[in-house]
Amino acid sequence: MNGAQTVIHTLVNAGVDTCFANPGTSEIHLVAALDAVPRMRAILALFEGVATGAADGYGRMADRPAATLLHLGAGLSNGLANLHNAMRARTPVVNVIGDHATYHKQYDAPLESDIEAYARQVSCWVRTARSANALARDTAEAVAAALGPPTGIASLILPADLAWQSSDPPNIPIPRRSRPAAPSSVVDAAAQVLRKNEPCALLLGGSALRGRGINAANRIGQHTGARVLCEPFPARLERGAGIAPIERLAYLSEMAQEQLAGLAHLILVDAKAPVSFFAYPETPSYLVPNGCSVYTLCTPTQDAASALESLAEAAGARQVTAQVQAAQRPDLPTGTLDGDTIGRVVGAMMPAGTIVVDEGITNSVFTPLHTIGSPPHTWLSLTGGAIGQGLPVAIGAAIACPDRKVVVLEGDGSAMYTLQSLWTHARENLDILTVIFSNRSYSILNMELSRAVKGSPGKRALNMFDFSNPTLNFAALARAMGVNAARADTAQDFTRYFSAAMSERGPYLIEAII
Amino acid sequence: MNGAQTVIHTLVNAGVDTCFANPGTSEIHLVAALDAVPRMRAILALFEGVATGAADGYGRMADRPAATLLHLGAGLSNGLANLHNAMRARTPVVNVIGDHATYHKQYDAPLESDIEAYARQVSCWVRTARSANALARDTAEAVAAALGPPTGIASLILPADLAWQSSDPPNIPIPRRSRPAAPSSVVDAAAQVLRKNEPCALLLGGSALRGRGINAANRIGQHTGARVLCEPFPARLERGAGIAPIERLAYLSEMAQEQLAGLAHLILVDAKAPVSFFAYPETPSYLVPNGCSVYTLCTPTQDAASALESLAEAAGARQVTAQVQAAQRPDLPTGTLDGDTIGRVVGAMMPAGTIVVDEGITNSVFTPLHTIGSPPHTWLSLTGGAIGQGLPVAIGAAIACPDRKVVVLEGDGSAMYTLQSLWTHARENLDILTVIFSNRSYSILNMELSRAVKGSPGKRALNMFDFSNPTLNFAALARAMGVNAARADTAQDFTRYFSAAMSERGPYLIEAII
Repeated sequence: MNGAQTVIHTLVNAGVDTCFANPGTSEIHLVAALDAVPRMRAILALFEGVATGAADGYGRMADRPAATLLHLGAGLSNGLANLHNAMRARTPVVNVIGDHATYHKQYDAPLESDIEAYARQVSCWVRTARSANALARDTAEAVAAALGPPTGIASLILPADLAWQSSDPPNIPIPRRSRPAAPSSVVDAAAQVLRKNEPCALLLGGSALRGRGINAANRIGQHTGARVLCEPFPARLERGAGIAPIERLAYLSEMAQEQLAGLAHLILVDAKAPVSFFAYPETPSYLVPNGCSVYTLCTPTQDAASALESLAEAAGARQVTAQVQAAQRPDLPTGTLDGDTIGRVVGAMMPAGTIVVDEGITNSVFTPLHTIGSPPHTWLSLTGGAIGQGLPVAIGAAIACPDRKVVVLEGDGSAMYTLQSLWTHARENLDILTVIFSNRSYSILNMELSRAVKGSPGKRALNMFDFSNPTLNFAALARAMGVNAARADTAQDFTRYFSAAMSERGPYLIEAII
Repeated sequence: MNGAQTVIHTLVNAGVDTCFANPGTSEIHLVAALDAVPRMRAILALFEGVATGAADGYGRMADRPAATLLHLGAGLSNGLANLHNAMRARTPVVNVIGDHATYHKQYDAPLESDIEAYARQVSCWVRTARSANALARDTAEAVAAALGPPTGIASLILPADLAWQSSDPPNIPIPRRSRPAAPSSVVDAAAQVLRKNEPCALLLGGSALRGRGINAANRIGQHTGARVLCEPFPARLERGAGIAPIERLAYLSEMAQEQLAGLAHLILVDAKAPVSFFAYPETPSYLVPNGCSVYTLCTPTQDAASALESLAEAAGARQVTAQVQAAQRPDLPTGTLDGDTIGRVVGAMMPAGTIVVDEGITNSVFTPLHTIGSPPHTWLSLTGGAIGQGLPVAIGAAIACPDRKVVVLEGDGSAMYTLQSLWTHARENLDILTVIFSNRSYSILNMELSRAVKGSPGKRALNMFDFSNPTLNFAALARAMGVNAARADTAQDFTRYFSAAMSERGPYLIEAII
């Protein structure tokens, strides 16, 4: 067994049996090892940002890491933006990054770079392997680091010579550490806050946003009057009929400030105190109102659902039943196609268990409203603000959950970042419907520009956010990569194509001309 | 004047009047400043890797930097791979990277990251601006750092609050430092080596590869018997009829070893001692033969052409005339379309002054042979090994040299990395012909796999380098982004399309099915 085989063996033994790959010569032995270890499923991406985004989607849905296989610093750097999003989502990921042979690095060959320097920016664990016989242990520790708690990104850098040298394949057990409960003293302190009968909110994030945690928070809210809020960009939010509804904090700080106004206490549940996404002149960055106290019920290393259930108990809400969302669907719209009507169609038609990958930016504002009473579904959002995550995340979600429909809501500007993803949708015949909001502009930037500039912005500035000339034809782009596609410019057309996509399996794209 | 206007003003005053941009909210004031400073030409890219690659192409051809406009760490990281290539090419580039407002960084908003940590990996100069009134000086120093010598990448990180604050616009002069001559003692020492009448070669790289330097090296070679070699991946090589031919070192180390075998002396002229691109078991990394002495005539900070002319003089070659390449064109081929016949068509038809951007990987081996006697032209190659540079570099070359035809030789695998470039080809109506070598595989990796694995590689490994299922339709992809395109699968068809592209201006793509 060579070092590469040891790495792949150890990964699958540790439960990491899916690998999103865009390898090169430095990883050639890892690729060759795929035949020695058929339990590893390797999925080819035509760009590293696709591979890392797919690993993010996989980890969010599987609650265990996928591996990536990346080509030196150049390959890692192409994957950094989506690793940044994965880091913000606290997604478990194991990067395996090939490096030059140890003795080759001194020669500063063209692809030489400081891989660790890149990896450190997004990883909770980074190691450059030093010996072929330590590779099983290195790999096992990488998986353990990714699993945490807290979960995160582990990056193992594998010099080519260790990959081709012979290597001991010891069976290293991976310690599975469960998330500890929040200490009862912390739960009791939070209960004290709730009993003050002052304006209070629970802010849920991260792992608190599954059904159990949300429903427990709802019971607390009913009993104590506390409001229940959701962080603005949840990595994974369970919602729909049968789950309590939860109010999401807005992207725009003015709106979030209104949501938070008047609070005397804010209890954080695997969430951070809210801050503005960007800074603006004369607008605060820190959005917690003056005089509002902030308590942390539970950190990312702890079990958020049990913390909330314990708090419900401590706050006296034992007998309270969660007020879950009733099933309701919007009527199908007719007429003009826009973000609102698209949201209605999605809400009216998406099946139970749908995974919505939301990178619709300005046009995604309406869809949550119209899907609130749809059958239970999962919402994955853009956690780190690095656009180009939607199409790749859908890959990983579809592979982690092959029996669930994935619907991607994608801005046209964002889609162009990692459009190569569509080819992997086709190659793996993934059950993904991609909806492109085709408004031919970075419309959120037009909004930001009009906020920033007093008076009307100039022509040359506006031109930077306008990509109407030439027009991109997303349906043709999709077909050219093997994904069947249609263009819709009325609500009726959109409904017809959406309905067809829901009734069939496999990749499909609707370009919504809005 | 606000800080953003000061930055843009200072750039154009320093001769940096072209900016490749993919901005976001943090850069909104820089975008707004484009209307205040109309001398700055801003070119929109739909992905940061396109913007940085374009800046690389521009700097290689203009011999002065373009600016990039990038969105925080996420935007910079998407541009790193092509900045790596630009760094290896020693291309002058000025990155302007927007950051959160200074007071906002403490809140760890979703897009927060350590921008300097990324920038340092590819830059010779990195600065985070600290005061709006220092921005003119910061910007001037960034341009000066990019100009060197040696030329390189300067990265100015601009917090949003400095961009919107009012700012002194002092006129900062940019010191233009010319490259000094190599010391005469060094020239004399090299001449001594040449006079030994032992097997010797000059290895030219970087700025030595313009016509003056190459012709001077040829005169030295004729007079002394020294061979004249070119580094394997030149950033910019002038060649064709009227320029002395030069032997390029091969990518494969076995072949490069043969080229270098028997040398007693190697004289480096703005080049590094040759090393293997990758390491292989039982193959040396350092390719200079045992016992061969290595001399440095000229470093990247010095004037390579004058160093070579001085050496010609010192070596007694004053009277020698350079043996320049005679004009000759290959016959037009018929029949099977492959890398060889494509090279013949290019050699037969490309006009004088063509800029060839070469990312054809395995299929580009033949084109240099068939273009050697074509009218004088410029060759830009993949300097850093980070694929995805061809289509973006073409943008910058076409903007720097609007009167010259640009021909991109592009592998299909590489094309998919930064395919969004084609939209900018169309939007700016650039005179670029893109030739896609469509063989539906990472064929260089198949070659490397067969070298790495004893016996035949397994099916699952081979599957990682095969993207035939589904087939990518590059002509359709191009048209969907506004670039007219055709597919060719015979030499005759390819000739017809190539000929049409040479006789017209504007973007075009030929998908060569090989």
